[in-house]
Formats: sequence, structure tokens, C-alpha cells
Amino acid sequence: MDIEEMLLDLKKKIESKLPNDTTISTVEFEGPQLVVYTEEPRKFADNGNIIRTLAKDLRTRIVVRPDPKVLVPPEESMDKIGNIVPEEAATSNYHFDPDVGEVIIEAEKPGLVIGKQGDTLREITKEIGWTPKVVRTPPIKSRTVKNIREFMRNNHKERKDILKSVGRQIHRETTTKDQWVRITSLGGCKEVGRSCFILSTPESRVMIDCGVNIGSDENMTPYLYVPEAYPLSQLDAVILTHAHLDHSGFIPLLYKYGYQGPVYCTLPTRDLSALLQLDYIDVAGKEGRIVPYESSQVREALKHTITLDFEEVTDIAPDIKLTFHNSGHILGSAIAHFHIGDGLHNVVFTGDYKYGSTRLFDPAVNKFPRVETVVTESTYGSSNAVQPTLKDAEKHLQQVIINTLQKDGIVLIPAFAVGRSQEVMIVLEDAIRKGLIDDVPIYLDGMIWEATAIHATYPEYLNNELRKSIFQKGQNPFLSDSFKPVDSNELRQKIIDEPHPCVILATAGMMNAGPILEYFKAFASNENNTLVFVGYQADGTLGRRIQKGWKEIPMSSSVNGGTQTINVNMNVEVVDGFSGHSDRKQLMDFVKKMKPRPERVYTEHGEEKFCIDLASSIYKKNKIETRALTNLETIRLV
Amino acid sequence: MDIEEMLLDLKKKIESKLPNDTTISTVEFEGPQLVVYTEEPRKFADNGNIIRTLAKDLRTRIVVRPDPKVLVPPEESMDKIGNIVPEEAATSNYHFDPDVGEVIIEAEKPGLVIGKQGDTLREITKEIGWTPKVVRTPPIKSRTVKNIREFMRNNHKERKDILKSVGRQIHRETTTKDQWVRITSLGGCKEVGRSCFILSTPESRVMIDCGVNIGSDENMTPYLYVPEAYPLSQLDAVILTHAHLDHSGFIPLLYKYGYQGPVYCTLPTRDLSALLQLDYIDVAGKEGRIVPYESSQVREALKHTITLDFEEVTDIAPDIKLTFHNSGHILGSAIAHFHIGDGLHNVVFTGDYKYGSTRLFDPAVNKFPRVETVVTESTYGSSNAVQPTLKDAEKHLQQVIINTLQKDGIVLIPAFAVGRSQEVMIVLEDAIRKGLIDDVPIYLDGMIWEATAIHATYPEYLNNELRKSIFQKGQNPFLSDSFKPVDSNELRQKIIDEPHPCVILATAGMMNAGPILEYFKAFASNENNTLVFVGYQADGTLGRRIQKGWKEIPMSSSVNGGTQTINVNMNVEVVDGFSGHSDRKQLMDFVKKMKPRPERVYTEHGEEKFCIDLASSIYKKNKIETRALTNLETIRLV
Ligand SMILES: [Zn+2]
Ligand SMILES: [Zn+2]
Ligand SMILES: [Zn+2]
Ligand SMILES: [Zn+2]
Ligand SMILES: [Zn+2]
Repeated sequence: MDIEEMLLDLKKKIESKLPNDTTISTVEFEGPQLVVYTEEPRKFADNGNIIRTLAKDLRTRIVVRPDPKVLVPPEESMDKIGNIVPEEAATSNYHFDPDVGEVIIEAEKPGLVIGKQGDTLREITKEIGWTPKVVRTPPIKSRTVKNIREFMRNNHKERKDILKSVGRQIHRETTTKDQWVRITSLGGCKEVGRSCFILSTPESRVMIDCGVNIGSDENMTPYLYVPEAYPLSQLDAVILTHAHLDHSGFIPLLYKYGYQGPVYCTLPTRDLSALLQLDYIDVAGKEGRIVPYESSQVREALKHTITLDFEEVTDIAPDIKLTFHNSGHILGSAIAHFHIGDGLHNVVFTGDYKYGSTRLFDPAVNKFPRVETVVTESTYGSSNAVQPTLKDAEKHLQQVIINTLQKDGIVLIPAFAVGRSQEVMIVLEDAIRKGLIDDVPIYLDGMIWEATAIHATYPEYLNNELRKSIFQKGQNPFLSDSFKPVDSNELRQKIIDEPHPCVILATAGMMNAGPILEYFKAFASNENNTLVFVGYQADGTLGRRIQKGWKEIPMSSSVNGGTQTINVNMNVEVVDGFSGHSDRKQLMDFVKKMKPRPERVYTEHGEEKFCIDLASSIYKKNKIETRALTNLETIRLV
Repeated sequence: MDIEEMLLDLKKKIESKLPNDTTISTVEFEGPQLVVYTEEPRKFADNGNIIRTLAKDLRTRIVVRPDPKVLVPPEESMDKIGNIVPEEAATSNYHFDPDVGEVIIEAEKPGLVIGKQGDTLREITKEIGWTPKVVRTPPIKSRTVKNIREFMRNNHKERKDILKSVGRQIHRETTTKDQWVRITSLGGCKEVGRSCFILSTPESRVMIDCGVNIGSDENMTPYLYVPEAYPLSQLDAVILTHAHLDHSGFIPLLYKYGYQGPVYCTLPTRDLSALLQLDYIDVAGKEGRIVPYESSQVREALKHTITLDFEEVTDIAPDIKLTFHNSGHILGSAIAHFHIGDGLHNVVFTGDYKYGSTRLFDPAVNKFPRVETVVTESTYGSSNAVQPTLKDAEKHLQQVIINTLQKDGIVLIPAFAVGRSQEVMIVLEDAIRKGLIDDVPIYLDGMIWEATAIHATYPEYLNNELRKSIFQKGQNPFLSDSFKPVDSNELRQKIIDEPHPCVILATAGMMNAGPILEYFKAFASNENNTLVFVGYQADGTLGRRIQKGWKEIPMSSSVNGGTQTINVNMNVEVVDGFSGHSDRKQLMDFVKKMKPRPERVYTEHGEEKFCIDLASSIYKKNKIETRALTNLETIRLV
């Protein structure tokens, strides 16, 4: 049966299940969804259950869209929406897209536009024909989110074509009689950086992550040229677990090399990775290093991105279903669960995960409907890599800040824009609100503020407590007056020229670049100041050197481009425990308490000895087959 | 440097090393060789050392060919050859090929045409310009050998183009900076049948064997469609270890699927595999089974075959050198040694091997200049698969024959055409000559006689003793009067209709097809007859059933196509010890005594538990890393 016949067939099936007088114009695959066009969207809206029942019967995701003929003109529609939606929703920015019959409504309280179980949305549809989509008006303005939303709206027509072609690929006919499942490791094994895997069956091939090894020019790229990945144009899908560049950095490159398929990720991951990718090529260009792709390829990736919510089972290939689960590592970070064939095999790629609660996120999920094979990160896989508790880490940080402020000193914290910065911000806001530390300004420099704005845009992805305080108590810690984004060179210069007790959070996290260097040069010589490391410092970085105790640092002068020597008289403190990665115990527990018990665990994303150590410990404790993966191998699961 | 520049460069280098007055017309890569064309072949012929020195300096194989201008006309040349070569050489069939300036001379005693260290050959060149190639006039006429030689002569022009293009591929420029070596298993792991591997580097990909699993329609083919093998057109080379169909059966199919490169094997392997491949598709067609390719593709493979002698180091890709070593399994069977990069890594694929002397062959070679990784067969890898000695096996077989002949019975031996048949023939000839068994006729039915003719054509590939008795004592056991090829249906019918004491060797070896079935139907009911198994009977074959003791066998009637039941009253004997495979002890010894000691051993070509058993035993005894390979995996060696 070819795809046209299949669609005709589906149309008949759907019609047969509808009430007698309901008609549909056409059905079409768009991405993983089946879209039903009808001249009577009201009837569907009236019967919320019809779609749910249909989707269950047909085992696919179904959306109903109005036939263009029945749409009320935009002007009139806006009035009607205004009448239906309560004013407290604070709607703004309506965008009507006749291609898909959707109106995108930005609202400060999207829940009020949605209504109980979608009641309000359905009422809107009944009145105007258009299908309303609600997005949150960001409480902190994010340039990234705004640009991406605009970009997606402007390219809706092209996107529809992309989705149609993806949909047809997913639902193509299959022919192979062989049954096997393989994993190919293209990067990120026995190392951290350039994470990249391929999961393949006789029918399909999907890539999981495609990261860059920022620390190394030589081994920067995953081995994308090996036959298992070649030609990239024949991959079915790329799955992105989270936005960090060691997972997302080379996804735009795929489009340069001929890939034209979809990228699946969560909504926050889409926005955060675009932010980090653009910054990556921007910095590389400025530093005269290899710039592997252009911003146009970042946009290409965006056009092909299909966002999925956690726990949403989605067909991504004829024989592969993908489900994302919260991984607790950074905003939008996901564990990817693949169900292959009709119960043939289940593989879980953990990506980076935190199996423990943090200020920001719930712990990683380790309960699945089924799982036979697990591919797990091993960043802290070493048996002596136990970390202090978060509580201890917070106390330690507070004490360091109190001590420094007592001396009227400045606290300088190098931090990654995405992840630890927001964690530290919440800790500081909490301590200031409770009076535990003085109410000094907390400057945020680099991309931290922009990344925080994206966090504030997607509170659904934060943990219960934080979400509640944002939604219900109206007490968004990110909006605290203590936080001062450094949004100009003038402000930065002022902070440097007029030193006063404060906390400065600045990128880059390992001090290899970014505004942190300016502050360091200015404040290093004063013994009343403190430099606090809250994240991992990789070998070869300035951060690691300072941690090791270097007291004289040669640096390029900010004034004349020559070299100056920085004397490090400031205190240097290392506050462990803020990691977004599971520590050794959490890695072991994640596997031990996994439901159901997996048959096989492969380790990756860690130094060689950590990966091996973790694999052998998991084997000894659980009697589960384990192995530390090696780059460039293809192993068979079934 | 592109290839034309490289050739000009080589030409200059060669000229600079020649005596002042020697000129060359042109140089060209043809297959792995560098061909030097000259108008003065006599000068090269005079100085046998020039070429040897050049080859060493340039690290490549060099042949010198006369420029067409200087060739003496064929008629005249034949007279001159007659004057130079002694009459005892018994030359016949001259074939002049102006394309390559070669004359092929068939002779009964090629050594006399070659002369001491090639002296006579050089004398011929000096006289006529043409380069003489000597081939043995087969002492038993082989249709196969005759057809292939004719075919190769008729397609010499196309072959020259093929060789030129192969040569250019081998000597192409390389660019990659990465260094890695991988092995992909496409078939023959944890099973016997469809052996197929790919050895790959960033520059090159070569396939080792491409066999068919005759016993299984479902898992008949290696997994040729996986990315590591795809597209076949981009493979650099196919290496064939020996002619058995589980290694050679799908090589013609590669040409159907787009492969256009060379097949490297020994000369006997080329002829034997063409024989077996043609028979394979012939039988499949007759039995109404899948015929995977046509005879035209067998010819295509022949056209692309480049034969190599044992111990001849040959460039087969920019970064891979191949050397074949005797493997002692069947005529022409080889162990393939790959030297990769400039000392980067050395891999040995054993193919099938016998690490022990037999009547036909020397033991397999296990001394190499270097070796890090070994991929070994495991047919008898089980710890309880120790076999009787050959001597005991021979005695056992003699006794069975004596007992049967005493009762005026008939001895029926199902045998593979290539390998065990010739071994058994030599044992029987020896026993008859020594008067140990009666001088009854030994009928050879199926392809056994043709395969024997090929053995007789290439005595250089037999062991010392047998070769000596053929060459020096003029006592070729294959030419014994006791052997009666069954070359017509009439003769077969006569043997069946007029039973008399005799030994019948007939194919197929596992009684799944072939003339053996006719004899079995005729002689099974008589308790004075004996059925003797000298080879392995796979599960599911008639041979295995009879071994297990079935006494009533339903078979299709040879008369009317209906079903008849055969009562098995004849004796059934199993004579172990005639295997061309190493038994358990020989497998273990092969690795233990290997020089140098390898770092890693992978097992394949055996039932799953045998492969695992052998891998774990080798690890325990030698503390060498081992693993039983799985189909569809790609492992990394470097
Ligand atoms: Zn991460
Ligand atoms: Zn990571
Ligand atoms: Zn064999
Ligand atoms: Zn074999
Ligand atoms: Zn060798």
C-alpha cells in the first residue's frame, strides 16, 4: 500500500467512526502527526473525546484543523477571542497562519486561555474556526525566544512542506524481513565532548546528539564520515537530548553535509541550543578558530526542529517510537527512550542526567514501560567521585560569600550560561531573601541573563516547588531586584572601575574566554576578593590552572593587545556539589533502582577510566552485562 | 601529486637507475604491479637483478614488458622457442597477446621452460621480444581450467583496462589524518556459512570472503546491505581465502550489486571457486530454489580476479598490504595477512585452516613478520572436539572397506568434491598399491573428478611429499588406474544395475543432493553394503538423519517422481579424523605457537557455543584478549 492509499484508507476509517453528519475534507501526515482537515471544526471541538478515541484506535497522534474555507477573518476573530478569554490572561501578539488554520496567542497566563481540559480553546475554535495555540509571554524578555518564534512564523509555509515530507518518511512502507538493532558510537565514548550515536535497524537510522569537543581542535568532530552515518541525507531523524554544545554543537553542521530531516528535542532545548550554537560560532570567529558552520545552518536546523513534550510517545521512523523523559540536568534536558519494532527492543540513552533533586529540577526519570538496554553517561563514574550534598554545597557557598563581603571584597564566580548559573542564582536569591547574606548586587554577565530569560519562559520544565512559587505565589526568584544583568560594556567597565562589595556571575565556566576574564584581570590582585569555582574545570583550561595553585598568570592585555602578568592574590575556593550530573552514588542508584531492570548497560560520556570503572561496578553490584563503549564501534543489541 | 605526475616521476627514477644506454617507453600501474614498457627487453632480460633492485627501492612489484614495436612475428617466434626449450618440456598451445607482449606457453614440465632462476625464460625474451608465461599442461584434462584459461585470453583487452583502473585506485593519493582500523562482521560469526568480513580504515575498505549459507534459505546471504558494506562499488578489494562456497558463494553476486573491483586469491582458488559457483547455481536452478546470480556474473568475477602466490606481499589499497600464507585446508586455501598503514596494525584472517599435516597439504603457517590481531575459525572449537589422528582415521577406513569387500559389498562414501575426496583417494590409492585392500574399482561421481583434475594442475600447492612423487618419481597417485570417473548417466546406471564389489565416492557430501542419492537408493537395502561418512553432517541434512539411526527414509522416486521409502539395512559407519579443519588441540596450538604472539584473538566460523568456548579457552591459556564475534558488529582494532 503506498502512502496515498494509506491516507485514503485512514480517511475512510476516521469517517466511519465519526457521528453521521460530520465530514472531513482531507487527511495528511505532518511530522509525526496525522492532521485531519474539516469544514466543521466546531463538531470536533464539541466532542473532545472523538480525537482521543481515534488516536488510540489508529495508534497515532491526531490533530484536527479547520478547512481554510470556514475561518472567520482575523480582525473579527481577535474581537471574539477577547470576549471569550478572561482579561487576567493578559493576551498580546496574535498571529494568524492560514496555512494551518492556527492563531498563535501570547498570554501571560496561558492556562486561562486553555481552560479546564482545553475547554476555553475549544470555545475559541467554535467561534472563529481557527485553532488557537497558546504560548507564554516571557516574564523576562528573551531575545532568543522572540527571534525564534518570529522565525518559525515567517517560515511556516516551508515548515509545512518539511513536516509533510517527514510525515511521509515516518509512515513509509517497510519491507525487510531481517530483525536487528545496532548502536554505533561516533563520539563521546571514553571522553567528554562530541557525543554522537546512531541507532539503526534494517529499516531506519536515527542519530542521538551531535556534539562538539570544544577543548580539542584535533578531535573536535564526531566521526560523521564513517559508513554507519553515511550518507547523512538518509538518516531518519536526529534526537537531541539537551542543549549543551557537547551534545548539540554540530547539529547545524549536519545540514551543511546534506541532512534534511527532523531534529527532535524539547521546546527549551530548541531555544537554548540555538543560543549556544550561535554564541559558539561567534566566539570561534572572534578568536580566529575554525568556524564549522554559519548562522544560516542554525536557522536550517530550527526549521527542521520538531519539539516534543516529556512522556509523549512519538513515531519517528517506521519501526521506532521515541519518548522523552525528564533528566534533571539542565532546562529541557531529556532521557531518550526508544521502542523498536513491535516490542522487539527498548533502548534508553540517558544523555546527561541528575538522579537527585536540585533547586531547579526534579530528579531524572528511571521508570519506563520497558527497557532492555541502557546507554548511560559516566561523568562522575569513578568510585571516588562522591560529591557533597547540595545542602552542604549551598552552605559552603554562603559561607564563602559572607566571609568575602565581611572584608568588603568581591565574589567572582565563573559559570556556564546554562545550568549552574541559574542554580546559583536561586541559592543566592533565597539566602538574600532570608537575610543570610547581605543584599549586595548580583551581576550577571555573558549569556547568563539571556539563558535565565529562557528558563523563565518555560517554568513547566522546572521542578514542582519552583514552578509553584512562580505560578501560584507570583514570586519568581529570577525576577528578584538583586540580579543586575550586565547589558553593556559601559556597565562592565563601571563595575571594574568602581569596585564595591558584590557577587559577579560571568561566563565562560572554565575561564577559557568571555567576560569572566576581564573581571579576573581587574580583581585578582586584591586579597580581599574571592574566586569561587562551582563547576568542573577541564584539563588545559585557565580555571584548572588557577585551581592547581598558579599564582602568576600570563594574559593578553585588554589595553594594548600585549601580554601582562596577573598576580593571583585573591582567595580561590572550590565549592563542589553544584553539578548537574549525577555523582557516583546517583549513577549507581539510577541503574539499581531502574524499573524494569535492564539487561545491559553501556557507559559513555566520561574519562576512559571512569567509564570502565562505572561499567565494572554496575556489573559487580547488579550482575547486569556492562561495557564501556569505544568510539567507532557498532554493537548489536538484537 | 596526481597519478600521472607520480608515473612520470617513477619513470624518471627508474631511468636514473638503469645503465646509461637503456631506455624505457612508458610506465603504467596494472593491478598491484608497476609495468615498465621498453624497446629493449633484452637488456632487462640480460640483467635479472635490475628489476629486483628497482622493486626493492620503489617498494612495489615491477614487471618489464616489451614495447609492441620490438616483437618478432608469432610464426617465427614459435620456431625460435622450439629451438631454445628442450623437447622433454613437451610444450603445446602457444598464445600470443600483443596487448601485453606476452606469449603463454603450455608445457608438461614448466620448469624446463623456466630454467634455472628463469634463465630459459630470459633467453626466450632475448630472442623474440615477447615475455613468455608458462602454464602447466594439465596431466588430467580439466574442463574448468581449459575454459578459464581461454576465457582470460579472450578478455585480455578488457582485463588490461580493469587492471589499469585497479592500479590507479591502489596508488591514489590519500588525505585523511585520522588513524583507525575496524572489522565489520557481515556473516559467519557464531555460525558456519556465509563468511564475510570488512576490514576498514579511513582510507580503504576491503572485504574478506563472501560466502553462502547453503543450509538455510532465510539466513543464506551475508548482511551486504548494512552501511559498512555500502555502496559495494566503493570497496577497494575482495579477498577470497579459499574456494568453499561458505566463503566464495556470493562473490559473483557482488558484481550484480555494483562491485567493480578486484578479487584477490590464489590460482587454484580462482579455478575451484568458479567450478563450485557454477555448480551451485546449476543445482539451485534444477531444484527450483533461489538462483542468486547468473553464470555471466561468475565470468565477471573471473575477469576481475588477480591471483597471488603465497608469501607475496602485495599493495591492495593505499594503506593495506596483503600476503597470503598456506592454510592447509584445501587446494589453494590461504591465510590472509594484512599489514595496515606504515606499521600501524597487522591483522590475520585465518579462513579455514588445518594446523597439522595431511596427505595433501603442509600445515597452516602461523609465523608472520608482525601480527597484533587474529580472526580465527572455530569449527572444532569445542573443548570435547578432539579428533582421531589421520593415521587412525586411515586405518579405520581401510578396515571398514576390507570388511565390506569380504562380504562382496559396496562401499558408498558421500564426499565434498573439493578437499576430502582427494584425501580419501590418496589413502585408497596408497592402500591398493601396498596391497592392503583389494584392487576394486573406485568410482568417482559428481564433480570429484573435475576437482581432482584441478588438483593435478597445481601440484605446487600440494605438500612436499606428494609434489615430489608427482614431479620427481613420475608417480601421480591421481592418475592411478583404480580411479574410474563416472562420466555418463549410462555408466552410473550400469554400476547400479550390475552391482559388484567397489568403492563409490560421490557428491554431495551431506547427501542433500547429487548422485550419491541415486547410489544410496539402490544400495541401502542390502546389509552387505556400507555407507561411510568421512565429513561433518550438518543438522537438517539427510546425512545427519542417517547418522542418527533413521532406518526408513522417505525419498522422491527416481522413476515416477512419487515418494518411495528407502529401508536402510546397509551398515553405517562414521570415520572421524579426515577433516580439513584443525581439531580443538590444533586450534589451541595454532595460537599458542604463533610467532609473534598476537595481542588479540577473535573467534568465528563455528557453532555459537564452540566460538565462545574457544575464545574463553584461548584467553585462559594464553592471557590474550579474546572475543567470539557476533554478526553485524563493527569493532575497532586501533
Ligand atoms: Zn550537559
Ligand atoms: Zn554532556
Ligand atoms: Zn572451507
Ligand atoms: Zn568454511
Ligand atoms: Zn604475512
